[in-house]
Amino acid sequence: MYYIGIDLGGTNIAAGITDENGNIICKDSVPTGREREYGDIIKDMAMLSLALVKKSQIAMEDIKGIGIGAPGTPDTRNGILLYANNLKFKNVPMRTEMQKYIDLPVFIENDANCAALAESVAGAASDVENSITITLGTGIGGGIVIGRKVYSGFNGAAAEVGHISIVMDGKQCTCGRKGCWEAYGSAEALIEQAREAAKENPCSLVNELVDGDLSKVNAKIPFDAARHGDETAKKVVDRYIRYVAEGLTNLINVFTPQVVVIGGGISKEGEYLLKPLREHIYRDVYAKDVPQTELRIAKLGNDAGIVGAAMLGANTTGS
Amino acid sequence: MYYIGIDLGGTNIAAGITDENGNIICKDSVPTGREREYGDIIKDMAMLSLALVKKSQIAMEDIKGIGIGAPGTPDTRNGILLYANNLKFKNVPMRTEMQKYIDLPVFIENDANCAALAESVAGAASDVENSITITLGTGIGGGIVIGRKVYSGFNGAAAEVGHISIVMDGKQCTCGRKGCWEAYGSAEALIEQAREAAKENPCSLVNELVDGDLSKVNAKIPFDAARHGDETAKKVVDRYIRYVAEGLTNLINVFTPQVVVIGGGISKEGEYLLKPLREHIYRDVYAKDVPQTELRIAKLGNDAGIVGAAMLGANTTGS
Repeated sequence: MYYIGIDLGGTNIAAGITDENGNIICKDSVPTGREREYGDIIKDMAMLSLALVKKSQIAMEDIKGIGIGAPGTPDTRNGILLYANNLKFKNVPMRTEMQKYIDLPVFIENDANCAALAESVAGAASDVENSITITLGTGIGGGIVIGRKVYSGFNGAAAEVGHISIVMDGKQCTCGRKGCWEAYGSAEALIEQAREAAKENPCSLVNELVDGDLSKVNAKIPFDAARHGDETAKKVVDRYIRYVAEGLTNLINVFTPQVVVIGGGISKEGEYLLKPLREHIYRDVYAKDVPQTELRIAKLGNDAGIVGAAMLGANTTGS
Repeated sequence: MYYIGIDLGGTNIAAGITDENGNIICKDSVPTGREREYGDIIKDMAMLSLALVKKSQIAMEDIKGIGIGAPGTPDTRNGILLYANNLKFKNVPMRTEMQKYIDLPVFIENDANCAALAESVAGAASDVENSITITLGTGIGGGIVIGRKVYSGFNGAAAEVGHISIVMDGKQCTCGRKGCWEAYGSAEALIEQAREAAKENPCSLVNELVDGDLSKVNAKIPFDAARHGDETAKKVVDRYIRYVAEGLTNLINVFTPQVVVIGGGISKEGEYLLKPLREHIYRDVYAKDVPQTELRIAKLGNDAGIVGAAMLGANTTGS
C-alpha cells in the first residue's frame, strides 16, 4: 500500500509517495505561486502527484489516498480548508477540487499536525502512543497525537500551542492576544532578544559574529556565541530556554504525553538545548512521582510535512 | 446494568449505585477518618458499597464494576493509587484491597477526572464528544474528556490544568511553581484578592458584608458586593474573571473542546460569571472563523464524584 502526501507551503508545494510506514519512495516540489487562484494551485498539486506516480511506476490502484498538509485551519471532515496563512484560501473545497484530477480519498490537515503525525509514525516518537511535536520557527507550531492519531479538536483548530499565554498582558503577539508563548519562545523571538542584548552590550560576541550588522542575527548566532562563553549570549540563551520550558511545562501538566518532540531550526542545538530544558521542566512539572515525559529532537526535518500528510490516509483524524 | 461509584475525599467517603446512564439509584456516605491506615479506609469503602447493594435490592450479578475517584495520581492500569493529597496513601493497591471484599472489576481515577466524566455522561456536556470540566475551588481542578473517555495521559497525571502558568515568575503556587493559573483563578485566590482590596478600600461594601472581619470573606462576598454596584468589588471580580479567562483561553487554544464545563462554588454565579468570561475568551482565542467552544455551568454538583467514578466501569480510561 502506498500514500501520496502533499505539503502545501507559502513558497513551495512539496509532494511525495510513501509506503504504509511513512518511508518516502520518491518526492518532488514545484513553486506554489501563492498569489494565484486556488483552482490553479490545486491543479498543480494534482499534476505533481500524478507525475510522481508515473515516475515511481507504482500502479494507481496500489495508492490508497492523498493527504494534504496546509497552513491554517481545515474542516477535516468535509475536506475544506477554512482559511490558510500566507495563501488566499478561504473555505476552499480541497477534496472536491483534487478529486477532479485524481479519484482517491483526499484528507486534509493542518501542517503542524501533519509534522506531529509524521514524527509519531516514522520519526522521533514512533515508539509511543501519545506525543506532542512542537516546531520552534517563525512562530511556535504544534501538533498533538493521541493514540497515534492527530487530535485536532471538534473544529480542526486544536493544538495552537504557540498561543497559550505565559505572561498575561505581556508582549503583543501577531494573533492579537498578548503574552503568547510564541512571542517569547519562537526562533523569531530569540533573534529579537539577541539583537536587543547585543545592542546594549557592544562587546558581546554576537556583534562580532555578524560583523556589527544586527540585521544578520539568526537563531543560531546567540547559541554559537554562548557556546564560545560570551556572557551576554549565555544570558539570552538561558532566558530563552526558560521561556521554551515555561510553555512546555504547561503542555506537559495538561497532557503528559510520553514524548515531546522538538523540531525547527533551533532543535539543531540538540543536547545544548535539551539538557537545560529538561532541568527546568522536571523541576516545575506538577506530578513528580510518576514516569516523566521525555524530550527528543525531531527526526524528519523538512520531510515531516510530506510524510505526515501521506499518513493521514492511514490514520483517520479529528475528534 | 448497574455500577458502584465511590468518591474518596479527605473528609467523607461518598458512594452510590448508578444505572448505565449515570442516574443515582441510592447513595450514602461515611467519615473517611483520614489518619487511618489504607486497609481500614478501603474496608469501609467496601462495606459502604455492600450496604448500598443490600439497600437497593439490586442483585450482585447485575453490578458490573466499582469505580473509585480519589484525590491524587492513580496508576489506572494497575489499579494503584500512587499518591493522594490529604491522605496517607502512597502506592496503595486499591484494586487488590477492594477485591478482598467484593469480586468485581475495580477502576480508579483522579477525582477531578471523575467529575469531568460525570458531566460528560450525565451532566452539562452529555451532548458532546469532547469536553473539559474545571472546578474553581480551593485550587483549580480539571478533567479532560476526549471521545467520551477520560484522558489521563500515559502516567495518569494529565489534566493538571490549574498548574499551567499564566504569569511566568509570578505568584508562588502551592505546587512549587510560580505563576500557576490556580494562584490567580481559584476561589481561594479570589478570596485573597477581595481581602486585599477591602483592606485598601475601607469604604468597600465587602467590609460591611463581613462586619469588618475580613477572615469571613468567602468567594461569594465579592460577587455579592459587585452586584450591589460596589466599585472595589467590581474591580476585583472583573480582574478575577480575566484571570479565569486567561487560563481557559489557553486550554481552548490547545484543545478546542466542544464544551467547557465550569464547576465549584463560584460556578453558582451563573451568567454573571459566564457572560464576561465569554467576551474575554472569544476576543482572545486563536481561531475565530470556526465554531467556538461553548461555556456551561456544571450540573451535577457534589454528586459528580460518585457518578463519574461509577461511569469508569462503563468507560475505560487511560491513554
